[in-house]
Amino acid sequence: MKILLTNDDGIYSKGIYAAYEELSKIGDVVVVAPIMEQSAVGHSITISTPLRIYEVNRKDKFFGYGVQGTPADCVKLAFYDILTTKPDIVVSGINHGANLASNVIYSGTVSAATEAALQGAKAFAVSLASVAYDDFSVAAEFTRKFAELFVKKDIKNNIIFNINVPPVKKSEIKGWRYTTQGKSKYLDTFEKRVDPRGNTYFWLTGERITVEHGEDCDDFWVSQGYVSVTPIKYDLTDYDIFNKLRGTEVEI
Amino acid sequence: MKILLTNDDGIYSKGIYAAYEELSKIGDVVVVAPIMEQSAVGHSITISTPLRIYEVNRKDKFFGYGVQGTPADCVKLAFYDILTTKPDIVVSGINHGANLASNVIYSGTVSAATEAALQGAKAFAVSLASVAYDDFSVAAEFTRKFAELFVKKDIKNNIIFNINVPPVKKSEIKGWRYTTQGKSKYLDTFEKRVDPRGNTYFWLTGERITVEHGEDCDDFWVSQGYVSVTPIKYDLTDYDIFNKLRGTEVEI
Repeated sequence: MKILLTNDDGIYSKGIYAAYEELSKIGDVVVVAPIMEQSAVGHSITISTPLRIYEVNRKDKFFGYGVQGTPADCVKLAFYDILTTKPDIVVSGINHGANLASNVIYSGTVSAATEAALQGAKAFAVSLASVAYDDFSVAAEFTRKFAELFVKKDIKNNIIFNINVPPVKKSEIKGWRYTTQGKSKYLDTFEKRVDPRGNTYFWLTGERITVEHGEDCDDFWVSQGYVSVTPIKYDLTDYDIFNKLRGTEVEI
Repeated sequence: MKILLTNDDGIYSKGIYAAYEELSKIGDVVVVAPIMEQSAVGHSITISTPLRIYEVNRKDKFFGYGVQGTPADCVKLAFYDILTTKPDIVVSGINHGANLASNVIYSGTVSAATEAALQGAKAFAVSLASVAYDDFSVAAEFTRKFAELFVKKDIKNNIIFNINVPPVKKSEIKGWRYTTQGKSKYLDTFEKRVDPRGNTYFWLTGERITVEHGEDCDDFWVSQGYVSVTPIKYDLTDYDIFNKLRGTEVEI
């Protein structure tokens, strides 16, 4: 099995190494990931500065290609210049921190998987749903097992799954569920500070507020000790609204 | 009417000024936009560097607030620190270049409108569908008229519309239509170059290939001389796939 592995925490992060070790058991893994952390870049692509690719070693041997760019850049460059054959699957992660509910739209991890689907590949994103917990072993094992399941599945290529693994020991994982993107939102706050020169600046902070907690939602299942697996797509059309509004255009 | 105006081409761009002049005819416009061009940033937010706000003059008078950040940052900061009352509508644009079909996911213009909807506002994004054409007058007039229509409409607040205006004279505009996000994709190519120090780098280029051209699609209607108005949402769940897969989880 040929696997392309990327992420948004960067090629030197702990999460991508954990995924690499597990995925290497089932296939040939090519790593193409940002050389620097790219969290919260969303589906950014780099068009104003040139992109560069560097060979990266970890533990004294060749690990993969580091790109001075975003996760979406990495996937585009991998397909264009680095991969010699089309991968059977593209994995993005393991992200350190949740990509659940409305936060999915800010996620570089998820956008790398989306970009891979646009390139015609089967792809999924994986996150360990806590920044405070840093044992990636359960998430890495699930990544390997889900990759095996997904590759065998007779399913169209432009599906993307967004996976979140609860930050608990293996014995505390209750199972996994197909889920929907939750409706929870973050209440943004900014911390206002003054720099040594007397100028004001802001740091974005944030606190999640749960607006709705439907039983299919990703954040609900993760809170119950299940791995959530949400099928997502890049067609943003709101078809309910479209079907209500079409034909109601008045001359303006 | 209270209007928040933002964009991704930056506060000094021609498109935001054209929108400002037209929207000022119908309401109080507060401008909060990136101080630098932010094209193709998608739904990036800035979490690793502090954000700063600068007062910006254009034509020798106060025009608005320039933010050292992304379009989504601008909207968050506007709601948190700049606006004194909730706006009746948030407008993002006018972008210089199309935001149609699969390109919508890379769009900073659209993401600003999405962020506004997450903040509970009615919002829309407007783009002039060609980088080669720079007469914003038709797009600006449509922006004003659509804002008036949308504000009066009894419709839920978290709807977002993505509008694209054909690059033609007013007499050549055939009307407007509610549309869906097209399925056209870009075939990415990179131009490989060598810098004066002998190191390789890449520039992203790209050419659109039309995969599907359904009669509801945004790019189809724009090519026919109509303004496209696509309702979009930030729930990325693929419900068709979810409904097929739910309950089929096997133990792994």
